[in-house]
Parts: sequence; C-alpha cells; structure tokens
Amino acid sequence: MGNSFGRLFRLTTFGESHGKALGAIVEGCPAGLELDEEQIRLEMQRRKPGQSKITTQRKEEDEIEILSGVFEGKTTGTPIGIVIQNSDQKSKDYSHIADKFRPSHADYTYFEKYGIRDYRGGGRSSARETAARVAGGAIAKQFLAAKGVKIQAFVSQVGDLALEKPYHELNLDVAEENIVRCPDPETAEKMIALIDSVRLDRDTIGGVVTCVIKNTPPGLGEPVFDRLHAELGKAMLSINAVKGFEYGSGFEGVKMRGSQHNDTFVKEGEKVHTLTNHSGGIQGGISNGEDIYFRVAFKPVATIMQDQESLNEAGETVTVSGKGRHDPCVVPRAVPIVEAMAALVIADFLLLSKTNKLSEI
Amino acid sequence: MGNSFGRLFRLTTFGESHGKALGAIVEGCPAGLELDEEQIRLEMQRRKPGQSKITTQRKEEDEIEILSGVFEGKTTGTPIGIVIQNSDQKSKDYSHIADKFRPSHADYTYFEKYGIRDYRGGGRSSARETAARVAGGAIAKQFLAAKGVKIQAFVSQVGDLALEKPYHELNLDVAEENIVRCPDPETAEKMIALIDSVRLDRDTIGGVVTCVIKNTPPGLGEPVFDRLHAELGKAMLSINAVKGFEYGSGFEGVKMRGSQHNDTFVKEGEKVHTLTNHSGGIQGGISNGEDIYFRVAFKPVATIMQDQESLNEAGETVTVSGKGRHDPCVVPRAVPIVEAMAALVIADFLLLSKTNKLSEI
Amino acid sequence: MGNSFGRLFRLTTFGESHGKALGAIVEGCPAGLELDEEQIRLEMQRRKPGQSKITTQRKEEDEIEILSGVFEGKTTGTPIGIVIQNSDQKSKDYSHIADKFRPSHADYTYFEKYGIRDYRGGGRSSARETAARVAGGAIAKQFLAAKGVKIQAFVSQVGDLALEKPYHELNLDVAEENIVRCPDPETAEKMIALIDSVRLDRDTIGGVVTCVIKNTPPGLGEPVFDRLHAELGKAMLSINAVKGFEYGSGFEGVKMRGSQHNDTFVKEGEKVHTLTNHSGGIQGGISNGEDIYFRVAFKPVATIMQDQESLNEAGETVTVSGKGRHDPCVVPRAVPIVEAMAALVIADFLLLSKTNKLSEI
Amino acid sequence: MGNSFGRLFRLTTFGESHGKALGAIVEGCPAGLELDEEQIRLEMQRRKPGQSKITTQRKEEDEIEILSGVFEGKTTGTPIGIVIQNSDQKSKDYSHIADKFRPSHADYTYFEKYGIRDYRGGGRSSARETAARVAGGAIAKQFLAAKGVKIQAFVSQVGDLALEKPYHELNLDVAEENIVRCPDPETAEKMIALIDSVRLDRDTIGGVVTCVIKNTPPGLGEPVFDRLHAELGKAMLSINAVKGFEYGSGFEGVKMRGSQHNDTFVKEGEKVHTLTNHSGGIQGGISNGEDIYFRVAFKPVATIMQDQESLNEAGETVTVSGKGRHDPCVVPRAVPIVEAMAALVIADFLLLSKTNKLSEI
Repeated sequence: MGNSFGRLFRLTTFGESHGKALGAIVEGCPAGLELDEEQIRLEMQRRKPGQSKITTQRKEEDEIEILSGVFEGKTTGTPIGIVIQNSDQKSKDYSHIADKFRPSHADYTYFEKYGIRDYRGGGRSSARETAARVAGGAIAKQFLAAKGVKIQAFVSQVGDLALEKPYHELNLDVAEENIVRCPDPETAEKMIALIDSVRLDRDTIGGVVTCVIKNTPPGLGEPVFDRLHAELGKAMLSINAVKGFEYGSGFEGVKMRGSQHNDTFVKEGEKVHTLTNHSGGIQGGISNGEDIYFRVAFKPVATIMQDQESLNEAGETVTVSGKGRHDPCVVPRAVPIVEAMAALVIADFLLLSKTNKLSEI
Repeated sequence: MGNSFGRLFRLTTFGESHGKALGAIVEGCPAGLELDEEQIRLEMQRRKPGQSKITTQRKEEDEIEILSGVFEGKTTGTPIGIVIQNSDQKSKDYSHIADKFRPSHADYTYFEKYGIRDYRGGGRSSARETAARVAGGAIAKQFLAAKGVKIQAFVSQVGDLALEKPYHELNLDVAEENIVRCPDPETAEKMIALIDSVRLDRDTIGGVVTCVIKNTPPGLGEPVFDRLHAELGKAMLSINAVKGFEYGSGFEGVKMRGSQHNDTFVKEGEKVHTLTNHSGGIQGGISNGEDIYFRVAFKPVATIMQDQESLNEAGETVTVSGKGRHDPCVVPRAVPIVEAMAALVIADFLLLSKTNKLSEI
Repeated sequence: MGNSFGRLFRLTTFGESHGKALGAIVEGCPAGLELDEEQIRLEMQRRKPGQSKITTQRKEEDEIEILSGVFEGKTTGTPIGIVIQNSDQKSKDYSHIADKFRPSHADYTYFEKYGIRDYRGGGRSSARETAARVAGGAIAKQFLAAKGVKIQAFVSQVGDLALEKPYHELNLDVAEENIVRCPDPETAEKMIALIDSVRLDRDTIGGVVTCVIKNTPPGLGEPVFDRLHAELGKAMLSINAVKGFEYGSGFEGVKMRGSQHNDTFVKEGEKVHTLTNHSGGIQGGISNGEDIYFRVAFKPVATIMQDQESLNEAGETVTVSGKGRHDPCVVPRAVPIVEAMAALVIADFLLLSKTNKLSEI
Repeated sequence: MGNSFGRLFRLTTFGESHGKALGAIVEGCPAGLELDEEQIRLEMQRRKPGQSKITTQRKEEDEIEILSGVFEGKTTGTPIGIVIQNSDQKSKDYSHIADKFRPSHADYTYFEKYGIRDYRGGGRSSARETAARVAGGAIAKQFLAAKGVKIQAFVSQVGDLALEKPYHELNLDVAEENIVRCPDPETAEKMIALIDSVRLDRDTIGGVVTCVIKNTPPGLGEPVFDRLHAELGKAMLSINAVKGFEYGSGFEGVKMRGSQHNDTFVKEGEKVHTLTNHSGGIQGGISNGEDIYFRVAFKPVATIMQDQESLNEAGETVTVSGKGRHDPCVVPRAVPIVEAMAALVIADFLLLSKTNKLSEI
C-alpha cells in the first residue's frame, strides 16, 4: 500500500534513487487520447536536476520509455507503463553513510519500519521518485487539457521573500521565464540571489509553491471524506519536504468574519459566479467552477554541505559529512511536481463525476 | 465513494442533518477490545451542540446505539454498527432556503453535482455528519489507548488571538476546563469574550485547532503516497470548514535554513530521540517516535445571522436571511472531531505496520 | 475489510444473527432514481424465513427502515443507510452450543481467527446477513431496471434432480409460482417432494441456482483481474454455503472442441449478435450484449436435526444436538440473494464503464 | 481499475501481447525476504511457450529484470518492479485480422468498451499477460514458503479424460515429470495423445486444473464478502479461458445430504483436525488448517487453425483464417498460473490476518 494514488485515474510508482530504474503505471486514462510524448518529455525537463545554477548539478537524463497502453499514438484504456532508467547511479557516493542516520531524513524511520533499507541516496524515500510522478501527471495534464482544464504552479515564496500580490494580479505566463519560476521578475531576481547565497553558505532554505487550476467544471469532489481539497491536500503532502497545505483563504482566513469571508453568488450571463473567491473554488468539498488555488509549504531540504552529528544503526554517535550534489532550495524543481499531483487529483474526480446523476448514465 | 476513511481500521458514515438518523460503521477494530460505551458518550458530549453559551443552542441528544460487533462487552472483529437518531429535526426551519444557494455553503455545488439536494440543514454536507466521526473515532481512541497512544487537541487560535507558547510549554490537561478548550486560561478568557462579541454582531469567526499525539511507535506511515502526515492532512481537510493543515514547523518552517531545521538524533538510554522536533514526529512520511503535532485552520462558519444576497436554483437574485441556531465559532466543538480523525489515521497505520517485516509475521 | 462489495456502486453490511439489527449501506447509487420501497420489501419477502413448508419456520419480519440517502422519494447520491431489526432473537436457543464447534460451520474458524465469537446463531457468519444483501441488491435492481437490465434467478437442481432443458427453452416467468422457485412445474413438484422427505429425515440437501441477466450493454467488466465473470464469481462465492460457480459452457465446456465452442458473430439488423452463446455473454471478461448466465452450487446446509460428534473450545469431544429451526434446502431462499449479488456486480460495472472512452467524458 | 490484485500483498500488471514489454509490480511483500531470482525464472519456464510438442511453438524468452524493491538480495518492503521484454513481436502476423472480430475472443468486446484496440495478438486481452502474474506469484510463493505454506497445481482433466482418484491418493510430485503435468503417468500418456490428435485436427480442447494448498494456518479469509474461497474463485476466474471454479465438494456436493457432507472435528495430538474434508479446508470463508483444494475449468482456446466466419468493424461478414502458433490445449501451461494466483490470494490473507486480534498487535 501507499505506492498508488487515485481511484479511477490512478498512478502507481516504483523504484529507488539508485536502483536500476523508476517506473510509473497510469491506469484509467480514457481510451482515444492522442498522447504527445514530447509534452511528457518537456515536463520531465522542468523537474530534471542540473537545469540551472540554483539546482543540484547531478546529471540524470530522465528519459522516459512507454512500454504499454498506447497504440498508434492513442491511449487504449489499458495501463500505460513507463520506465525511467537511472543513468547516474554513483552508489559509492553513499558508502560513507551506509549505516548512519542522516538528520531529518527518512533513514531512521525506514530502518525502524522495515529493518532493512537501501541507503543509496535515500532509496525509495528520495525525491527522485517524483520523476515518476511528473511522467504520470503529464498524462493526466494532457487528458485534462483535452477537457479544457489548465493547471499552473509557480514559486510564491523563498525563505521570507514572498510575493505580495495575489495570483490573479500577476501574469503567470512569465513564471517559466526565470530559473526560480516566480511570476514577478523583480522578486524572482531576489529569490535567485537568496538561494545562491544560501548555497554558498553550504546550507538550504524552504519556500512555497502556489498552484492555480482554471476551468474545472462544477461538481468535482466526493463527500464526505474525499473532499476535493482533502485529496489535493493529501496529494501535496505526499510530496517530499512538504510541511503544509492551505487553499482559498487558508490560515489567514481564520482571522476573518463570516460576513467578510462569504463569497456572494451572482449570475454572469448564463454562468453562476462568485464575487470573491475565499472558498478557493471549492465549497462543501466540491468544485464550484471558480479558480481553484492553494499553497504548499516546502521545508529547507535536509541534506546540507556541512558536518552534522548523528547516530548510526548501532546507536553510536557519528559525524555525517555533507557530500554529493543537492538542491539548496527545492521549490523551483517542485513546481512541475505540484502540477503533476494536482492533475492526478482533478483527473480522478473528473472521471468519478461521470457517475453522479442517473440522467447522465 | 467518499463515505469511508481508512483501509484496515475503517470508518464509514451515512446520514443527513435532518434525516431519520446518522450512522457510523467501524471495520477492522481488532477483536478482544473491552469497549467502554460510556467513553464514547463522553466524546459525543464534547462535540454536542448546546454545551455552552458560545456554541449553537440547538438541542441534539446525540445518543448512540451500538447495533453490532460487540459481544459481552468486547469487540468481536466484525463491523461495529452505530446509529445516532436525529431527535431535533426542525425541518420547517429550512423551508425559506429550499431553493436558495446560501453563500459559501455546499448548496450550489451539491445541486450541480447531483441535480437534487436535501436542503434541510445542508443535508449530507452539514457538520452534523461529524457526530458519526466522533463515535467512530472514540472506538479508535480506545484501541490506541490500549496500545499506549494518547491524542489530545485544543484550541490554539480564535480570530487573531493566538497562543504564543508552543504546546510543550503548556499544561494541556487544563484545556477541557474552559468552554473554548484552550490550555492557557488567560487566553481562553479573551477568546470567549471575542466569540461572544462576534455572536452579538450576528457574525462568525475562524480559529485554529492544534493536536498532539504522544507515544506513537516508530514505523507508522506508508511510502510514498500514504505518508503519515498526508493521511493526517487529508483527514483534517475532510472536516467541515477546514482550510489548511500544517505539521511540525509548517508554513513558518519555510523561512528556516536546513542547518537550523534539521533535528539532531541522540540516544537517551536505549531510546533514539531528537533534540528538536521540527519534523513533527514524522520523517519521510513515517513516525519516528517523537510527538506528532499539527495545526488545523477553520474558516468562519458560513451561516451568519444577517441578510445576504444570493441566487436561487432558477438563477434569480434572492435574499438569504440569517435564521436558525448556529455556532459563532466552530473550533471549541471541533476539538473532539480533530482527535477522532487523528485516532482513525493512527489506528489504521498501526494495523498496517504489523505486516512490514518478515521476521514479525 | 470484507464487509463491502463493489467500488462505485458499493454495498456495506453489518450485523449479527442475534444482535440488535442488521444494516446495509448503499453508496454510489446515482442521484435522481425514484426509489420504490415496496419493491425492496417484496424482495425481502422472497428471502424471508417461514415463507413455505420447505423453508425454516423461524419468524423474522425483516422490516427495512431507510435512514438516509433518499429525499422526497428520490435518491440524492448520498449513502442510503438501511436498518433491519432482529425481531426474533431467541438467544437461549443457542446456549447449548456456546462453546461447541458445530461441524462444517464457521464456529471453529471464527474462534481461531478472532479468539472470540458471538455463538448465537453463528453471529456474523449466519446467512441472516444476506437479508442486508437483498435490501442493498434491491436498490441495485431498481437502478438497473431504469437502464433496461433484467436479472432473474431460479432453482435448476436439488440433490440429483436437475432441469434438463437449457434456460432459454423454459418460461422463467413461472419460477416464482411454486415454492421451490423452479421454472418447470413438473420438476418443481419432484424437488418439493425431495426436500420434504429430506426434512422428515432430519437432514439437508444441496442444490443449484441458475441466473440469467438480459439486456446488459456491451463493455462491462474491467480487464485483467476484474473480469465481469470473475466479479460475478466472487459475488456468488461470497454467499453462504456456495461451493462452485460456472458461467456459459462452464465445467461441461472443457469437453468440447474449440471449433464447436466458438460463438459465431452475425449481424441482426444493426445489432451484433452470436449464433450460439457458450461464452455466456462475456468475452475477454467483458459483456458482449448477449444473455449472461451462470450456475451457483450450494452445499447441503450444515445444521441438521441430528446428534453429531464434535469438539468444544477446550478440545474435548462433545455431542452437538440438532435443535432450532433450519432450512432443509437453502436454494429456494437463495434465489433472491443470487439476484441481489448479481445486480450489485452489474450496477458497479455499469458505472465504471462510463469512464472508458474520452469521447464520452 | 482491474490491473491490480490483492490489498496488502498486491500485484499490478501492465503490458500487451505485442507491445514493448510486460510489467509486474509487487507491493507489500514483507521486508527481509531473501529473494531467489532463479526460482522466479524456473516458474517462468513452466509457463513459457514452446516448452513441449503440445504447446504453442512461439518463442518468448520471458527473461525477467528486477528494477526495484530488492537490495543486496533481500526485499526492502518497497515495490518490486519487474519488466519482461517482448522478444518475439511478429506483429505482421496479425495484420490479416486488424479489423476482424475473432470468434469467442475479446476483439469485439474491447472494441465496444474502448472504441480502439491493439489488435496485435489480442493486445492486453492476450494470455501473454499471465507471464507477469507468474513472475509476481513466484515472489508470493517464496514468501509463503518461508512461512511453510506449499501450493501445488496439476492437470486433472483434458476433454473427457479425467483423473479418477482424489488428489490425496496421488503422488503429486510426479506431475512435473510429464509434459501435460498430470500426476498419474498412465492418464498423462492418454492426455498427451488426445491433445496431439486435437492439434492434428487443427482444433483445440479444454481441461481442468486442480490445485492443493497445504499448511495454511487457520484464520485466513475476511468475512463476509472477502471469503477465502471467494477471492480464490475471483483469482482463478480472472485467468484467460477459465469458465468455472469449485472448491471442496463443489458441484458434486450438491447431491449429498448434510449428514454425509459435514466434516467431523477430532483432535490429533494438539491439533484440531477434520475426519473428512468436503469443506476443502475453508469453513465460513475462513481457512481451518486442512488442505485447501479446488478445481478450475478451462475452455478450449478460441484460436483454431481453421477458417471461421465472422464480422469486421464495419459489420461486414468476413473469414477469419487460422494462422499463427497457438496452444491446442491450455491447461499444461496454466498450471503455474493457477499456482501464482493462489499464492497471491494466500499471501494477501496471511498479511491481513496479522491484524485480527488485539492480543497480537
């Protein structure tokens, strides 16, 4: 359990950081979708290490190979199996930590849970697993695009440098034009400088990714436990290094009065609409057709280029040295991962919603 | 789909706000647990409306009746069926909103999703459904108590009135001694005054519930999608009016450097321990044995005692009048709901963890 | 786990033979279905004990009460909770077997599995649980009827008395006109006489129920593990006392040559059709639009009115006396149970099939 | 949905007959199992085409490559990803049937369900998919072997040639010594001759596989829907060409009286035992510790080396010619598939059973 996400549109991943390969299996993608492999590759490039000076300089080609589920360019309704070879398995890099528990990593907890662990690069706990998510999510995005749904994430905060304007006052299209993926060029500059200085300190820093989903039809989300935002929250919290999730008015909204917070319904032509959107496009756990937006908090990554005291498996005090090639800040590369997981959630609920009304069956 | 939570330890609920009854079915509770019905009733009392001047004055007896799964006082391993009659069904209270979409409620989205809705008190979308969760969660709590795990939630913020001290500097035992369920008596007074003034304004206000789980064994949580905090997040976000979830260092943690944020492992006698706990007791999605703690943001409830403009099913502009008996602030009554959902998550993962190691099977 | 059946159209049951009540929760029934409670009651009557001289003389009123999910006569898309009170709980009838393992019952296996068991009437293992299935299945049948699908089961064998004609040469409409539910009146007479003589011997006998499903659309069934007949098989094998399942040509078909067994496709007007139907309406695990038919084998029920040697919980040899009121042959009352489970399977796959093609989403 | 089997011990497969590769993902195998890759390869050999004169002469190397989940020879608790390349993809063999519906194949039903199909060798509907099951099942078998459980299947019937003795009067160890996998050498000879004559007739014939599971602990199976035999039945019915399943006394048992059919409990040393085993090792859907045995009916395979009339996608009458290399009788190669599926079922229930009793958690 735990290696799959979704019910009808479902992604299963396998693979460790330094094993032979990662895999993604996508089930439930409706038959007849023209699949654009190049688009999947572009998403993989957005997540790839070594893409800029502020990301890890590890080299992974992240080439995908589709093994099944596509025939003459179209999905067939059968599972789409994808394999991503691990080309850069420098396993010896990790021998120095073979029996050590790196602080705030998953080394100790995997060891306690399973009694054995693949210590090379964190094994299954490595964020490398998210490459499989981006591949699977890219297929979900194409399915959603065919239905008019658009998902876009961007970096809204690094350390204490935060965007001040709300997303709808920004031109999100420019986010991909800078290496930190922030839609405000000025703030982007500052964020890059901050990450760079943290990197020179051999340290790391956290950040926030904001995501906006447009053109979702009303009616997505399954009461009462599988509320749309509950699944989005689980999806985001399942990404490495995530510490928090909020949607719509979020934590700030608790300070408001109901009379301020309530979103007034109005009619715009034939379309029902709300004047404000503190609800974040979700009411009672179900989409209402407005923009869905949420924020995801990422901690500073645990691997730092400094010596740290810790324990080994024998319970002895040891020093963990900072080696290897790691990200000083994870959020620029997290943007496509957030989008991938969001796409999986929306695709799944879109399929589920096709069974709600007798008149449509 | 969406009416069940958990895999091995599983709660299913049914029932609408003004239907005949609510129901809770608990599956997977291990056989042989001495079930204390009185304890379940006490939990129900903590959630019950009308318990103090700052909660709704609706009267619901919330009497539980156990129909199955318990024999001679012990659980038998078969599903525990519980019914809670709806004693106070003042359906006529709702006739004035039969075809109106109340702002920031689920009226519009249910109508779009299903094409039909039980408008009485919000039907299935009402927070009344959480009574069934508290009943089910109370059984999970008893199972966990038998294994030494303790779960405690409390109110840490109302509007902009927030506790300043971290939870471990507070005496949580006193939280239940005041009607707002805040462990700092002085802040509690202020919170009560604030809620009372909001109530007199015929308005509502949001708040935050913090929850602490002690004595969880290491090893709970299922990589990679079913991380312990991802399931906790989903559980909390599935509660009515919740807008955000964060655990450990949460959103504040993004401002920290990795060198500050990392939790150093040390040995205390035979036990592995961390000097700090920014991880919130969870590393790589798996419990490490430290306290698990998290915060849950609740919006101001949407029902206010004021006239609001809205639409009806025909798309006409209408006035929604504030009537009925509602909570000016939901967090005091949300405390046992947060605990119930947390208990369900931990119970489920505890069972799942029994199958991880070959040597223990 | 194990108390639910189905994914999208889903039945969960709870309750023991001599507990307070049984329950059925139906999830996923599309919203907007006019629910005919009387039809549900009629199905309950078909399964009810005491309905004729060849069934047990126990009295159970089997009155259903719908607690949720229906508003103004229509389903709302929320779970339909049903409770069936146990009116005839003669628990003292069972004190004589409290610590004894009845031969070929579930007493020993429940005790081994859970370490505790509700010995009254077999507790959860009693066929009384199937009352909840019939209630839930009756809703599935109404949903299917609204889509034109018709399900009909009948008794085709008792002991070695078997119908000789295939189902399509019989008038199935007369099956409900005799107490053994066999569509051939002459054979029905003989079956009734056989059951009666077995009853006088204080013994029991097995039988076979055949089920036919008409007007199923092509495309139902999910490759590769959730083939339509695999789910039908599981559904049937989950009914008490069932020992075998076969569909289409079944076990006899193994003797045929491929050239005889293959069903030739032909066109009849606009409809694709097969000349023969050894496939039983299912090819590659997916319905092809022809009649689906299958046979279900029921063993002689284990409770006989004779003394039997056995063991008790302490491992001592004891005598189990035949007491109580039991069925000499289970198949007449099994007919509506087979239909109920078949309806649940078809309803579930019908919903799932709505998500297969991009062009229909 | 439909590509996975099992809850805790779970196999997911992907891949088409003539795609690039097949895949098997095994989740939930407990950590710390020494995995013998050679054993997996031996199982693959037992299923492989071209192994004898009575099987298809297609050549598939069926080499497995393990991509994840194993570290230094032991399972780590993370998913085990396996890929099997399709080496013998003679796709042009199938151009002549590209738009034709082969009789009693899945061509028509896949086309109806998905609106598109990979016609090469049946695509996903091909029995080639069972190679992935055998790989996954081989891991389940190793896990079970470590717990003392042994699973053995054999051919008990071909056409109307059936073994007369029950399994416990046969020496099952000799079954693998002949190419038809029948434990009675004399019957085996006749079966081989029969299959050979059918092959010369360019026809096919059906058969029965019997399976015996020894040393299963009592307590496996989850009431009420997930009875042990219900899952076994589903598992078997999910195998290509299966038309029926019966366990214990099966269809023959319906002719017995309860007084004959009941299995008397006795004590043998410390062990509870039954004198007969009409129950097939399962009572109330839960294993009782006796041998579990069941029979699986396979139809004559649909591909015959003869011309047949059929329809094409345009609804025109066409001739389907018998080409390619196919099995005249599927049961010899089905033996390891039946074992694989049985192993998956038992492994899953074994894990589930670890959570039944409070005293063992």
